[in-house]
Amino acid sequence: MSVTIYDVAREANVSMATVSRVVNGNQNVKPATRKKVLECIERLGYRPNAVARGLASKKTTTVGVIVPDISKSYYAELSRGIADIATMYEYNIILSNSDKRPIREVELLEDHLGKQVDGIIFMSDSLTDEIKKEMGTANVPIVLAGTLDANTNLPTVNIDHEQAAYEAVKKLIDNGHKRIAHVAGPMSRDINKFCKKVGYERALQEAGIPLREEYFIETDNTYDDAYDKWKKLASLDEMPTSIFAGNDEIAVGIMNGIRDDGYSIPDDFEVICFQHTLLSRVVRPQLTTIVVPLYDLGAVSMRLLTKLMNGEEVDDTNVVLPYRMEERQSTK
Amino acid sequence: MSVTIYDVAREANVSMATVSRVVNGNQNVKPATRKKVLECIERLGYRPNAVARGLASKKTTTVGVIVPDISKSYYAELSRGIADIATMYEYNIILSNSDKRPIREVELLEDHLGKQVDGIIFMSDSLTDEIKKEMGTANVPIVLAGTLDANTNLPTVNIDHEQAAYEAVKKLIDNGHKRIAHVAGPMSRDINKFCKKVGYERALQEAGIPLREEYFIETDNTYDDAYDKWKKLASLDEMPTSIFAGNDEIAVGIMNGIRDDGYSIPDDFEVICFQHTLLSRVVRPQLTTIVVPLYDLGAVSMRLLTKLMNGEEVDDTNVVLPYRMEERQSTK
Repeated sequence: MSVTIYDVAREANVSMATVSRVVNGNQNVKPATRKKVLECIERLGYRPNAVARGLASKKTTTVGVIVPDISKSYYAELSRGIADIATMYEYNIILSNSDKRPIREVELLEDHLGKQVDGIIFMSDSLTDEIKKEMGTANVPIVLAGTLDANTNLPTVNIDHEQAAYEAVKKLIDNGHKRIAHVAGPMSRDINKFCKKVGYERALQEAGIPLREEYFIETDNTYDDAYDKWKKLASLDEMPTSIFAGNDEIAVGIMNGIRDDGYSIPDDFEVICFQHTLLSRVVRPQLTTIVVPLYDLGAVSMRLLTKLMNGEEVDDTNVVLPYRMEERQSTK
Repeated sequence: MSVTIYDVAREANVSMATVSRVVNGNQNVKPATRKKVLECIERLGYRPNAVARGLASKKTTTVGVIVPDISKSYYAELSRGIADIATMYEYNIILSNSDKRPIREVELLEDHLGKQVDGIIFMSDSLTDEIKKEMGTANVPIVLAGTLDANTNLPTVNIDHEQAAYEAVKKLIDNGHKRIAHVAGPMSRDINKFCKKVGYERALQEAGIPLREEYFIETDNTYDDAYDKWKKLASLDEMPTSIFAGNDEIAVGIMNGIRDDGYSIPDDFEVICFQHTLLSRVVRPQLTTIVVPLYDLGAVSMRLLTKLMNGEEVDDTNVVLPYRMEERQSTK
């Protein structure tokens, strides 16, 4: 079995981003870290270029990347992971924005296939029947990155969002809260509907805390909408005492709403969220958060795609990456 | 003269992003705005698809985009502008990350040219002699987006960073400050060295305020470095009373440093910066900032490239876009 960049990252206890920087000669790595990574590469016998040279089945040396919106940091970070592994295996990337519009997604898929890409990495909120049908007829491999696939057999790379949400809410319960609100992203996104919300509900149910409809708030994923929707929670006769937010932008909206009403965090309200950007770390108080390995989701997706394009045997086409919780100042 | 998306945006008094969303059928536009944009399109006779169909000179219908790092929001937002106009003119984008490494930039340029792209949009901190030489021999048009070009004749799209920096510092002077620090991004980036720093110095000199070496601080453009470097300013016998920061990430680092030392903004220190992300708006106090039209820089670059690829006559190949200052809570 060949050694992957993922093995090197695990062995050296660094991110795949760091291994990639070392391999690609990027200066932005601490000397001690570089030394450690190079030692692991040597010890494990990792040979990125040798693998790349071995890929005889390439046609256009191009892969398609279909992304909702590259200007969103979530997808920008994921795409950087995809691009670095693509570079390592000498593929170019054709990047297209779908804005999550189903018709556009089908058009882009057809367009990329027509351009004879060797494979496709696809990201979206939800897979329509049309796109699944289109994917079913594709003659090249397709990998779903950070995208749920309820009923098809497509290769995917994800974290266990349900379990992560469960743990976040469990932490609030362990801190003594019984009135826990979930301020979520749009339910049109499968990960929000079938993972984060379900994990939230499971944690409450296990603790014997009844679900309260008024404690579930859906937003459009933006700071502004979350800031506005705080008023809904603030107007309740019995306000929640803690909030599980779907991402850090939502959390900061809620946090500013809380503070503009004269309350304090974490004394009056505890807040926990999913981290997708720098935000959670630079606001005060800093947000306790589930850290999602966005770069790695992209990098592992692309590595999986290279295997599939090369006809290598793949044990598991549904890869689940680890995440971690980082406790900061917004919880006690 | 044909009507451009830029004309429509100006006429409707909306961003190019909004016009693009309307043209591409994106739902994420307020109904009243959509109506206004459609009226302007009708009145001006704007025909995006007709223009696209008229482009007979296409070869691969692909353009190359060489960007330092797509995971940085500055470039992610710019790239979204590029991609939307590319879609409108039916071009695909090959996207590559250079990490600003000169050798890599030359390799990527050669690689893209070898792939027979119809044109290239190039972004970097500074143009080396090697890359300029390589660009000089290219047989397709190249546009520099948000990238300075001191000595060559390449088409560019920028804002007047020098004047914007001047106005930001002028505002601090008008508010009565004489001790004004500039916490800058890396001087290896030409825009920082030859525009923002020069504008800062011009404003001080015009006001008869002597430049003080200890008030100029260079950072690596990150929150963490700016947070650390605040200590340099805090340790001075005569601390500055206001800060002009090179971008919003730097400004938030400085701001948190100021607040962790128990000072308040804007009472003890006023801060002003260049806005590149959501950060400046969601932190408290909100940051007064120069708003850089990142999406438009990308969109106009791509529109300029379509003209050049199509052999259209172009009056001005050095496009300078407008910016604005947004006064918020970090200044008085």
